[in-house]
Amino acid sequence: MRGVPSLAPKGRLAIIAGNGFLPIYLAEAAREGGENPFIISLRNESDQRFDGFETASASIADITGFERIFREKGIGRVVLSGGVTRRPDWRDIRPNWKVLRKLPLLLRTLVSGGDDALLQVAIGIIEAQGCRVIGAHEVAPGLLAKTGKLGAHSPSQDDIRDIEKAAEAARRLGELDIGQGSVSVGGRVVALEGVEGTDRMLDRVAALRAEGRISARRKGVLVKLCKPQQDMRADLPTIGPSTVEHAVKAGLAGIAVEAGRALVIEEQKMIAAADAAGIFVCGIDLGLPQGGL
Amino acid sequence: MRGVPSLAPKGRLAIIAGNGFLPIYLAEAAREGGENPFIISLRNESDQRFDGFETASASIADITGFERIFREKGIGRVVLSGGVTRRPDWRDIRPNWKVLRKLPLLLRTLVSGGDDALLQVAIGIIEAQGCRVIGAHEVAPGLLAKTGKLGAHSPSQDDIRDIEKAAEAARRLGELDIGQGSVSVGGRVVALEGVEGTDRMLDRVAALRAEGRISARRKGVLVKLCKPQQDMRADLPTIGPSTVEHAVKAGLAGIAVEAGRALVIEEQKMIAAADAAGIFVCGIDLGLPQGGL
Repeated sequence: MRGVPSLAPKGRLAIIAGNGFLPIYLAEAAREGGENPFIISLRNESDQRFDGFETASASIADITGFERIFREKGIGRVVLSGGVTRRPDWRDIRPNWKVLRKLPLLLRTLVSGGDDALLQVAIGIIEAQGCRVIGAHEVAPGLLAKTGKLGAHSPSQDDIRDIEKAAEAARRLGELDIGQGSVSVGGRVVALEGVEGTDRMLDRVAALRAEGRISARRKGVLVKLCKPQQDMRADLPTIGPSTVEHAVKAGLAGIAVEAGRALVIEEQKMIAAADAAGIFVCGIDLGLPQGGL
Repeated sequence: MRGVPSLAPKGRLAIIAGNGFLPIYLAEAAREGGENPFIISLRNESDQRFDGFETASASIADITGFERIFREKGIGRVVLSGGVTRRPDWRDIRPNWKVLRKLPLLLRTLVSGGDDALLQVAIGIIEAQGCRVIGAHEVAPGLLAKTGKLGAHSPSQDDIRDIEKAAEAARRLGELDIGQGSVSVGGRVVALEGVEGTDRMLDRVAALRAEGRISARRKGVLVKLCKPQQDMRADLPTIGPSTVEHAVKAGLAGIAVEAGRALVIEEQKMIAAADAAGIFVCGIDLGLPQGGL
């Protein structure tokens, strides 16, 4: 067959694993879908054990190391998953010749780009190694949030107004490539997510509420949206049992995420927790009136 | 003279004092300008003693009480100053007949309006009592930030880029009537101010930096802007020695505020602290290239 162009084989699937639970759930969902995923844990980021999966670890800056793993393991497709809390220092980057042309852009984006811009560059670098980067939702479409309520409880009319308010703020925040989440209480946006992440933003809301700086009577909602310009292959907004736990502590009425563009991990456990706490979790469709609720 | 319209007398100046240092500095500046200000401390908010000034205290919801003070003290002009961390509960509102027509708007705004919307309603209620609400800058124009550097240090080109990034985010935040402040580090917006206020946003930046989630090498800046639609008679962005102290802890290179639309309290003490710490403080003019720096 040498010299004859063949249909490119799909190649083995690699999951590059940052922190949090998403990578392990994704690995399991991929296996259920018939894949034999190889896990590359990011050093100093990945915090899960991948028992029963073939794994290696690599520093996020070690492009040479990734190339070697891709080659040795016959990787053809790559999924990025989980969080990355620390950006690599530009002096730690170990480039190979395939990315020399991209290096100036990488270094510039590393120090001053938003998350979305940086992920775009990372995707370009992985694809320069000959792999295709695909989205978590392509490997495990069942993880995407559906439109409408996911558990037993539904948002009230007041909650829907809060969803609209918080969604507007989250959309603007996303346009600026700053963050994905926002909390509105009684029609008033009280917190926006920056680098700290959703759980810590919710902790802040809990603290403000304990101090009486946010109404004790109006509950409010958390909204997480995909950034408008965001590549769905990276960093989709994610919720799970821990989001529900923090939302309950913050005294919220519920959580809304963008249907079809947000991931739900441990959905059953999350819904059980939400149902027990009496809060709603729903997927909203921004193209429909009242988000399709 | 009865029945003959006279030029309305200016009337005595009242300063309605919320929390923080602004009210006391404003009172002193007003006295230096020849006024004899009467201080109305907001109960559960005002945290300063106004030794040497005539004072009374009132609950923020007690419209009847304010009316009585205005009448008894011959108040003709009112300045709102200092912070209000707790919105009154609508059930505590003690209206008088002069505001009956405004009551539905007040209640609605109280529960769901942004700060700016609520202040507009508050101004309308005070003016319905026959007083004119004026800005702190009209009583003490010397408190307004000037264009350019205020201390010994100037922003670098990198800092100016951070100022531009943070100013864009702060402007959008202001358009949504959410907050006035933003922090950019290395050209990337890392934090936006919600209900928590500037000092606590800076504490968050300090924590994120200690955890390595924000570059240790790029310093970054705090920018505070007036909301585009904001009435200058209420809640102007304010900085002072405490802002410098928190900015230093957050590892920032400096602070930029909107020239002519932000207040500087204890300017000399603030500048001494900034100079000693090696950070810049500057007033920026959004209509000029590079903010007029």
